[in-house]
Amino acid sequence: MRVNLTNLECPRCGARRDADVPTNLCGCGSPLLARYDLEAVGKALTPEEIARRPADLWRYRELLPVRDPARAVSLGEGWTPLLPVLRYGHRIGLPGLLVKDEGALPTGSFKARGAAVGVSRAAELGIDHVALPTNGNAGAAWATYAARAGMRATVAMPIAAPESTRRECLVAGADVHLVDGLIGDAAAKIRTLIAENGAFDASTLREPYRIEGKKTLGLEIVEQLGWAAPDAIVYPTGGGVGLIGIHKAVGELAELGWLRGRPPRLVVVQSTGCAPIVRAFAAGRRRADPWPDPHTAAFGINVAAPLGDELILDAVYASGGTAIAVDDAEIMADLRQFGRDEGLWLCPEGAAGLTAVRHLLASGWLSADARVVVVNTGLGLKYPETVAGDSSG
Amino acid sequence: MRVNLTNLECPRCGARRDADVPTNLCGCGSPLLARYDLEAVGKALTPEEIARRPADLWRYRELLPVRDPARAVSLGEGWTPLLPVLRYGHRIGLPGLLVKDEGALPTGSFKARGAAVGVSRAAELGIDHVALPTNGNAGAAWATYAARAGMRATVAMPIAAPESTRRECLVAGADVHLVDGLIGDAAAKIRTLIAENGAFDASTLREPYRIEGKKTLGLEIVEQLGWAAPDAIVYPTGGGVGLIGIHKAVGELAELGWLRGRPPRLVVVQSTGCAPIVRAFAAGRRRADPWPDPHTAAFGINVAAPLGDELILDAVYASGGTAIAVDDAEIMADLRQFGRDEGLWLCPEGAAGLTAVRHLLASGWLSADARVVVVNTGLGLKYPETVAGDSSG
Repeated sequence: MRVNLTNLECPRCGARRDADVPTNLCGCGSPLLARYDLEAVGKALTPEEIARRPADLWRYRELLPVRDPARAVSLGEGWTPLLPVLRYGHRIGLPGLLVKDEGALPTGSFKARGAAVGVSRAAELGIDHVALPTNGNAGAAWATYAARAGMRATVAMPIAAPESTRRECLVAGADVHLVDGLIGDAAAKIRTLIAENGAFDASTLREPYRIEGKKTLGLEIVEQLGWAAPDAIVYPTGGGVGLIGIHKAVGELAELGWLRGRPPRLVVVQSTGCAPIVRAFAAGRRRADPWPDPHTAAFGINVAAPLGDELILDAVYASGGTAIAVDDAEIMADLRQFGRDEGLWLCPEGAAGLTAVRHLLASGWLSADARVVVVNTGLGLKYPETVAGDSSG
Repeated sequence: MRVNLTNLECPRCGARRDADVPTNLCGCGSPLLARYDLEAVGKALTPEEIARRPADLWRYRELLPVRDPARAVSLGEGWTPLLPVLRYGHRIGLPGLLVKDEGALPTGSFKARGAAVGVSRAAELGIDHVALPTNGNAGAAWATYAARAGMRATVAMPIAAPESTRRECLVAGADVHLVDGLIGDAAAKIRTLIAENGAFDASTLREPYRIEGKKTLGLEIVEQLGWAAPDAIVYPTGGGVGLIGIHKAVGELAELGWLRGRPPRLVVVQSTGCAPIVRAFAAGRRRADPWPDPHTAAFGINVAAPLGDELILDAVYASGGTAIAVDDAEIMADLRQFGRDEGLWLCPEGAAGLTAVRHLLASGWLSADARVVVVNTGLGLKYPETVAGDSSG
């Protein structure tokens, strides 16, 4: 049993909590973060040793909250490709563009990282039933890993969420509730169900370990670049857990002395139809107001009131990053151009990152010689409507 | 430039051909196989050295036909998870069951292996346009890798092929032709198109390098088990290239002295609605007659007249394997039971492997203490109709 995980900590009020008791938010309303004895990690482990380990996210086990990694609930997740995309990169004037392809993960999205670690930790804490609202992919991932753990899962999602994700939940035997509304309405449904039937609330940032799984996205990018960060990481931001996780990863690597060079600038990408973080950033604020009447074809970032607004904005400010909103029409055009150039079918959220990169190049915020990672958060084929099905006879 | 690839060889008539000239079938009508200087490979390389390499299929580059792996056309493919599935395994009385999850590959299917190596080699030989018929996944994979290589692709597929695969071809900018018929009709369409417009014929086994990519499936299984084979590998067999590739991989590893213990018994799984290989095996024949009126929900194995019948049957006989046909209804029941037990959404072809395993356990052909690998050839979500979309409100 390792003891690197020391406690939970509130980033807002500084309160400390026991990490070995199932916990949701801090009493002050903020999400909690897991803290580790990084000095002990640094004494026991080197980057060279990590490099020799299997190619999954458990290679970072000393920086993860699961005390017995041998009992991790795993489907082989992690170590996704970091792809140079030279043809498309040259086309838009950024040959140093890279795509982190999270479609290779189980359930075809980056949500598998949070679910693998979150479910593993929940199982270790004796939880036998999790419940969460979702725009689709998180529900699919948590339902899948819950089944793998022999745990019950209850999921609520908007009726407009990608149908593929609903079917994934059903395959895994989850209790699925469709809501005629948005993710906020699904969250209300989950609260009702939990009040009626019990279950641990595994909503985004309401439990502290999903973010630890997402953190591995940042750890991998840095390791894949030889323990150096790119100049910028462009992240499609709905709930924002991945961005918070990347920021936490970079901070822990810096504290360990394992990060060569400068930390990356973190770029929030949202849709012009739902841009609460972008609006708050433009106003220089640390909290975001809910976005009225949100809508975008990039369904995963259709989150009007992210609970992690403060953590997201802190990460953007601290990293010298920015936040930018992009149009659905441009997203789809970039998705198709990228497909023709590189073959890969990005999800609309990933393609939104390309649109953002083009605009940031045009404005001079990114320079043409920058090394930039766009996170493609999942498989394009989970969103069949992004491509017309017509073909010749 | 390595020179391990020595020549192409006809397994039927023994003819040798120059490997550096674009080539289809042997004059005698048989597919050609790539041959290597395995003695040179064995002197230059050890399994320990391979184990230290990146987690993709190019770790086996000395056993692949691409002379300059630095110019390989890659999307980060290979090294897919080999998953223990204890809950389902105990349920059916085979705790040693493992699933090789090929859904993690780019384009979500095992076809990416053949396409990555086939397109890389085609590009190296100066080919700028490939054409092939497909039941869906091969077309998606070849179109994707062709785009990645800056190469044209022409694909013909049955109109009933999974819609997701059609869209993948279109995303990648391929010229897609839908055929009101089966894969044999798509093949006829491709022959017409090639006659009219040119393009290199990249049909299954009509070019010799796709099989080299598929071979890495066998190399990975053996390496992942510590350079030892499982007792049996269960393979859903349409065109059968993967099974031929696994057999070739095992043979090369044995010749290199890198295979500990016995080679695996190879099991062909087909549908009762399309079982040409199973019928030929039952009759003790080396060639298979075309199957009349083929039909199965496991679309990838709906191949009435596989060109590689002789190579498939040779592999089954030589390995002490068997061939078994299973019902669609049982396939779907096993797919759903497996989903509830393990979370993972198998494709129907992969689930057919589970059905086969149950029958082979019942008949005593497999013993309860065997270590058995079922190849899940792709993502379940490419086949949405395998799961009802109903859910509670």
